Amino acid sequence: MVNQVQQGDGSWQLCKADPSGSSSSGASSRESSRCSTPVLDSDGSHRLRDKMRRRIESGDHWFSLEFFPPRTASGAVNLISRFDRMGAGGPMFIDITWHPAGDPGSDKETSSMMIASTAVNYCGLESILHLTCCNQTKEKITGYLAKAKRLGLKNIMALRGDPVGSDWEEEEGGFNYAVDLVKHIRSEFEEYFDICVAGYPTGHPEAESYQNDLQHLKEKVEAGADFVITQLFFRAESFLKFLDDCRAIGITCPILPGIFPIQGYQSLRQLVKLSKLEVPEEITKVIEPIKDNDAAIRNYGIQQAVEMCRVLLDSGKVPGVHFYTLNREVATMEVLRQLGLWVEDPRRPLPWAVSAHPKRKVEDVRPIFWASRPKSYIYRTQDWDDFPNGRWGNSSSPAFGELNDYYLFYLKSKSSKDALLQMWGEELKNEKSVFEVFTNYITGQANPSGHKVMCLPWNDEPLAPETNLLQDELERVNKRGVLTINSQPSINGKPSTDPIVGWGPAGGYVFQKAYLEFFTSSENVTALLKVLKKYEPRVNYHIVNVHGHNLTNAADMQPNAVTWGIFPGREIVQPTVVDPVSFMFWKDEAFALWIEQWAKLYEDESPSRMIIKYIHDNYFLVNLVDNDFPLENCLWQVIEDMFETLDAPPEPTEE
Amino acid sequence: MVNQVQQGDGSWQLCKADPSGSSSSGASSRESSRCSTPVLDSDGSHRLRDKMRRRIESGDHWFSLEFFPPRTASGAVNLISRFDRMGAGGPMFIDITWHPAGDPGSDKETSSMMIASTAVNYCGLESILHLTCCNQTKEKITGYLAKAKRLGLKNIMALRGDPVGSDWEEEEGGFNYAVDLVKHIRSEFEEYFDICVAGYPTGHPEAESYQNDLQHLKEKVEAGADFVITQLFFRAESFLKFLDDCRAIGITCPILPGIFPIQGYQSLRQLVKLSKLEVPEEITKVIEPIKDNDAAIRNYGIQQAVEMCRVLLDSGKVPGVHFYTLNREVATMEVLRQLGLWVEDPRRPLPWAVSAHPKRKVEDVRPIFWASRPKSYIYRTQDWDDFPNGRWGNSSSPAFGELNDYYLFYLKSKSSKDALLQMWGEELKNEKSVFEVFTNYITGQANPSGHKVMCLPWNDEPLAPETNLLQDELERVNKRGVLTINSQPSINGKPSTDPIVGWGPAGGYVFQKAYLEFFTSSENVTALLKVLKKYEPRVNYHIVNVHGHNLTNAADMQPNAVTWGIFPGREIVQPTVVDPVSFMFWKDEAFALWIEQWAKLYEDESPSRMIIKYIHDNYFLVNLVDNDFPLENCLWQVIEDMFETLDAPPEPTEE
Repeated sequence: MVNQVQQGDGSWQLCKADPSGSSSSGASSRESSRCSTPVLDSDGSHRLRDKMRRRIESGDHWFSLEFFPPRTASGAVNLISRFDRMGAGGPMFIDITWHPAGDPGSDKETSSMMIASTAVNYCGLESILHLTCCNQTKEKITGYLAKAKRLGLKNIMALRGDPVGSDWEEEEGGFNYAVDLVKHIRSEFEEYFDICVAGYPTGHPEAESYQNDLQHLKEKVEAGADFVITQLFFRAESFLKFLDDCRAIGITCPILPGIFPIQGYQSLRQLVKLSKLEVPEEITKVIEPIKDNDAAIRNYGIQQAVEMCRVLLDSGKVPGVHFYTLNREVATMEVLRQLGLWVEDPRRPLPWAVSAHPKRKVEDVRPIFWASRPKSYIYRTQDWDDFPNGRWGNSSSPAFGELNDYYLFYLKSKSSKDALLQMWGEELKNEKSVFEVFTNYITGQANPSGHKVMCLPWNDEPLAPETNLLQDELERVNKRGVLTINSQPSINGKPSTDPIVGWGPAGGYVFQKAYLEFFTSSENVTALLKVLKKYEPRVNYHIVNVHGHNLTNAADMQPNAVTWGIFPGREIVQPTVVDPVSFMFWKDEAFALWIEQWAKLYEDESPSRMIIKYIHDNYFLVNLVDNDFPLENCLWQVIEDMFETLDAPPEPTEE
Repeated sequence: MVNQVQQGDGSWQLCKADPSGSSSSGASSRESSRCSTPVLDSDGSHRLRDKMRRRIESGDHWFSLEFFPPRTASGAVNLISRFDRMGAGGPMFIDITWHPAGDPGSDKETSSMMIASTAVNYCGLESILHLTCCNQTKEKITGYLAKAKRLGLKNIMALRGDPVGSDWEEEEGGFNYAVDLVKHIRSEFEEYFDICVAGYPTGHPEAESYQNDLQHLKEKVEAGADFVITQLFFRAESFLKFLDDCRAIGITCPILPGIFPIQGYQSLRQLVKLSKLEVPEEITKVIEPIKDNDAAIRNYGIQQAVEMCRVLLDSGKVPGVHFYTLNREVATMEVLRQLGLWVEDPRRPLPWAVSAHPKRKVEDVRPIFWASRPKSYIYRTQDWDDFPNGRWGNSSSPAFGELNDYYLFYLKSKSSKDALLQMWGEELKNEKSVFEVFTNYITGQANPSGHKVMCLPWNDEPLAPETNLLQDELERVNKRGVLTINSQPSINGKPSTDPIVGWGPAGGYVFQKAYLEFFTSSENVTALLKVLKKYEPRVNYHIVNVHGHNLTNAADMQPNAVTWGIFPGREIVQPTVVDPVSFMFWKDEAFALWIEQWAKLYEDESPSRMIIKYIHDNYFLVNLVDNDFPLENCLWQVIEDMFETLDAPPEPTEE
């Protein structure tokens, strides 16, 4: 597209395709010229309200998802996994309800605050935190908001909440209505938060009248709310009438319908009781006869929700639909699939998942070591104040957080102790038993007791599609005690749209240097070092044991870029590096996982535990980079040469 | 090479090949993890004394060159050109003498201070500024030193200087000897400067005795001098005896012999008189008979210097030789060539010449526009305080200096007005005359009056070897009024050691996006814009006229990397970008050159001047980038399509 700016005074101005414009004169909000992350959403603003505005303009429908905080720690682990899975479908945002009874603003892993923070920071999801103000002091509310801001949350759903007991009365100067909370947020935090408020298509149960209720909504919007999500309803007409009535009295912001796919008889009854809604007869007529058949009710619920959403979206007045998921995924995902709204976009802005924390928006470089443990990396770098160079300010002294993340709920294994023992062996006989576990993980074959190895302490997920390209080689070396935990093939300029290795905007080219990281015995390392001399300076290596015994041929402390991309009209992006300094922090974590996640499955002093402990104490962690990315990856040949050296008859020694 | 660090306490330390070492714990001197300039000298320290130490350790002989400040402004222009030419041979450093009578510390273009500053900042040469202290106040000297530091000078040759008149007496607390100046520098500036002092192989003319003089030298070194350069001498034995005597009394620092290649009878007589040296009989015997034959004397001088240097270097005691050039280049270059010390290293650390100013050491990105005017770029960015990202901190508001650099002596054309008129035409008839000048510059053919076009206002040098690769295409388009001023071909991963396009350390790969920049008429631009629609988004363009009428398809203000390199064990380096903001600053400069350097050659109101003025007022400056670097450069096809569009019969218009 072509933009022309003619200025009569002879001064000049650059022109942008973005209608929000940005003159080059004076200070810009862009902080560093190096920030060239080719985010798919290349627009300047990351505010939810602006994203909505742009989606409305483009006519591209969206969906969003509501969750409530779990009751238990293991429930939290499961919910976080669900965020990752449901995030893959591309929600505009998720929101987390506020449970006043559940210590919602605390640091407990089940609190509303922590769940929302995890969604933003660790799952990269745009999130709205609910907040109710009823019976709260201004100080308390300000404290919650300040904490939310500190944690990187940017959106608040401002609610009154249900008064405790029935004898509630208005408090002078207190929070009596949601509008008071909206005003408070705007007065204390100005434009920092995007604010959402609730709408009631069939009127608030406590409102004097429907008209009166509409006026309340208008007041909330005028006080500073950016958009509206409605209470659930059962008929599309209810919402559409409500929408028209809102527009008629001058409410112009986005109003999103809250959709409740009926998932079971009990949950419907409970919700209806809570929200004082009436279920229309055409629904009860269907449901009552099948009330004991969960599957039938769910199927009906799906069909009913799909039909209602179609009417809403086809009306041309509804830009997106909001789902009350009840923390379940099957029904909502099915509705979204049928509506064509569930889009698993294989395009990635960067090779790793970007965090949604505002301060991490400019992050565009990470060490390769945490590729399979991104949540650990985010946790250990959460205190970095900013990312002036797309990462920490100084690669020679990155202040990594303490190594205690295997206690964190969002990093807990999804598998139980029993499941882990089945995968990794009830009893280990020797080091070879460990080699077999690694090999089975690579091949995906069942172990002798019939269980597939779905994860390892360093990899909570099955092999990445990219790693699958190397499966044969990986299998062969793991069998012989080269216990791989991370690898990538070399890539010499594949299109950025490549479904497996591509990332960044279309029209670019991505590159990689081959990388291999593994644990192996000191005997192997001795042979490897001999071999590596032949590969100078093509191969860079770092070899370290748990005690910090460290061998490298890196000439200095500079990171080695191992993944980069070239895009039209942009600077080079190099999202992954092998950074010598970070490697020493990773080393501590990688060795600790042997003990924390594996050895501790077994009895103290048991032979199995001693075997893992032996490996932890004596093996080396090795990483290798083949710098010659245009040639065929030589790292497999390096390992092959190492095996050959080991197999060769010992040379006669002279003495 | 392998380095091992075993630490008993379980903590770890990274190991480096550099013996100077650098632990990763705590703060490092490396300021930004992004500074990954692959300088050929990858060592951490840029101090002259450290460079000498390393060269001595490696046994690799070096040379250095002494110059004096010129008397006239045009002499300064010539001397700067000489710096560029003689810098190509790889001197360890140059030094600039201090002329107390010539206002040496002033901002005049002929002052010692400005010449040394230009050598450092604009020619990228390690330089030593002489400074004499005789008859100077401490305040004055401190002022000179502070100014030198501000200008990026890092090395001082501390001298007493000749007292004015013969009635000089010691001053209490004043500067009586060079040793006082050495002490003063160390006391006021601590270790900032490297300090050189003078040695006298045959004794200082005013010294009480040779032994006494050696003691004075020892005092200077003990006061903080880092190395010694000697007064000239005529016999290698003189220097070698002096060196041994110095070592015998405990002077351990480098001592460099000052070599004076005899270049003529008069200059020898004058120098001898000044330095109160005696010319040995074996030399006068040869010279006297040929004293009127300059060529013969010079040949003898070359031969004599070569022989003496050979003896010195072969002694194993002399790491490098220092030349008193008398601001001439032929004799010294010939001596150096015969000694095998003149090495034109085709390797470049970056595609552009790196400045020697300490604050620019981390600079690793420049806009492509100033590729042929690097001194202008350095001048206009000299006030940038630091280069946190390898350039200015914020690409959206780079504070470029005022556009007045065509008045600066180091940017003045080396050609006289007459020579320029011969090249660019005594009289222009029409725009076509201008097209022919551009075409002749490209082809290297003589114009109708028999003169070759060796430069253009935008290019003070003949075509770069790289541009020669495009010569046919360039000729064709310039003939038709696409007046090219900058271009580069696309490169898809050539070895970094490639003699034409390579740069950076060995073992890497360099890449380029094709680039083309030219002036052309608004009719051409209209056709071009039609054509460019077919090349979206492959081709990025910026098109602007002198009034700031600006057309672009760049989606935002981000720079487009057009030259980058991938190296073993390093981050990506992208030394050249097309930066939309800088382009608007360059545009002003590029248009102004039409008037300042070309139009003003002609009489006011003359037709020739009006033609240039017309082009200045009406043409557009266009830059094009072909983002698809792995494919064949499409920019020539774009221009071809533009010509076709222009040649096509006009479409019948309906009305």
